Amino acid sequence: MAIAFPRFVRSESSAIEEANMASSSSSSVPSPPPPPVFLTQEELKQIAAYKAVEFVESGMVLGLGTGSTAKYAIERIGELLHQGKLKNIVGIPTSKQTHEQALSLGIPLSDLDSHSIVDLAIDGADEVDPYLNLVKGRGGSLLREKMIEGASRKFVVIVDESKMVPYIGGSHLAMPVEIVPFCWKFTAERLQRLFEDSGCVAKLRTYKDSDEPFVTDNANYIVELYFEKDIGDLNAASDSILRLPGVVEHGMFLNMASTVIVAGELGITVKNK
Amino acid sequence: MAIAFPRFVRSESSAIEEANMASSSSSSVPSPPPPPVFLTQEELKQIAAYKAVEFVESGMVLGLGTGSTAKYAIERIGELLHQGKLKNIVGIPTSKQTHEQALSLGIPLSDLDSHSIVDLAIDGADEVDPYLNLVKGRGGSLLREKMIEGASRKFVVIVDESKMVPYIGGSHLAMPVEIVPFCWKFTAERLQRLFEDSGCVAKLRTYKDSDEPFVTDNANYIVELYFEKDIGDLNAASDSILRLPGVVEHGMFLNMASTVIVAGELGITVKNK
Repeated sequence: MAIAFPRFVRSESSAIEEANMASSSSSSVPSPPPPPVFLTQEELKQIAAYKAVEFVESGMVLGLGTGSTAKYAIERIGELLHQGKLKNIVGIPTSKQTHEQALSLGIPLSDLDSHSIVDLAIDGADEVDPYLNLVKGRGGSLLREKMIEGASRKFVVIVDESKMVPYIGGSHLAMPVEIVPFCWKFTAERLQRLFEDSGCVAKLRTYKDSDEPFVTDNANYIVELYFEKDIGDLNAASDSILRLPGVVEHGMFLNMASTVIVAGELGITVKNK
Repeated sequence: MAIAFPRFVRSESSAIEEANMASSSSSSVPSPPPPPVFLTQEELKQIAAYKAVEFVESGMVLGLGTGSTAKYAIERIGELLHQGKLKNIVGIPTSKQTHEQALSLGIPLSDLDSHSIVDLAIDGADEVDPYLNLVKGRGGSLLREKMIEGASRKFVVIVDESKMVPYIGGSHLAMPVEIVPFCWKFTAERLQRLFEDSGCVAKLRTYKDSDEPFVTDNANYIVELYFEKDIGDLNAASDSILRLPGVVEHGMFLNMASTVIVAGELGITVKNK
């Protein structure tokens, strides 16, 4: 489906047009001459999101991501449904928050119990490494995202260029792990010990400006792991985390993304697995 | 600590005395001549439980198991505390049910957040294979049990002989898996598919005589896996289960038991790792 790329209020610029034109390439295609306008991070997120929605076709079962980038994709899907350019879409939301947004836009919704195979999922990510492994879940919905995106034939990730990292953990921001509240301190300590060689620090996620533990949609807690150094073999790290009783799921999405769309100042890069 | 083996109302028999005498052996020591009395399964459970409590010493942090066999051990610990034969015990209960029982017996309680190392845990099991791998959690407390027993220096398992199986799943009774309620049908299907070569059937646990899903202490559901055939490599099976998003924990306790006490008609067998 080719849907015209939308023009933004402050984005009727060659940068966006050229980003759009360059989007089907599988590597970064800088647009000469360099774009004269400065794009905000929000605009970059929106560009990547709209580009991802070009993969959507009528009749698809769609995994709907969560977070500040995914919300633009959902907004766009709602718009295209409303315009009649998309038909018979079923959305599977990855969080209560996305459920609300999609409902308000009139996107028909279902769940994995009714649709165990998802045609396409679109979601943001907190980190993307050169092999398209991801860190996700800083928004707190990692478990539902992993269930739904893991059930998707195609998983398109949308990010602005600030999310690209040389290795997982490389942003030195949180890698979230969802754990049961029962004896959470004990589990947090075990997680930290697991990666002590990488200078790991484990912290319980709390609500902003509060000591109250953040509670996930599944009524669990989130422990955030900060790594000083590369943790090495990601599959081994994943298994070590999952083997700890008390851990429900972690935010490393390994070998799951089929396509990553990166919006940057110099254009859109589409990376395929 | 050597605590006199208690006499039961219907157990003041040579069978129990001899069972007790045979108990420090590392393999089954039949007591000739064969015991003249028939012991019920409850009596066998009690014999194993009381034997396990002989491992308890004053000052220990104790993991307190859950279920029909563990309850006898907890009862006995309460009795010895009351008699002053044990002192300064701290119990870490593996379920709300055990918490209640221990409280009512006056056993001082704590948790893993305060005591991250447990000296000794005592608990029953649903299956024990020849390598002392276990199936646990038919009582519904597998996650807390695994957290606490995994943190124990010594883990003594107490069973009657009906629990011994040639391989995990060999009883053809349930191997429980704790899962998040979100899209549980989807997760149950994926679990069943994982072991389809072993003729696996997955069923949601419900309350007795009801269609209502059984809810764990952690507000999750339990899917019960029934295997027709041996599932093979247990560590591989464990990792495959844990890698499914939506799975919280499973009831295979691999390489965790340090000692298994088996009470049978012919005496007590103590198996050490």
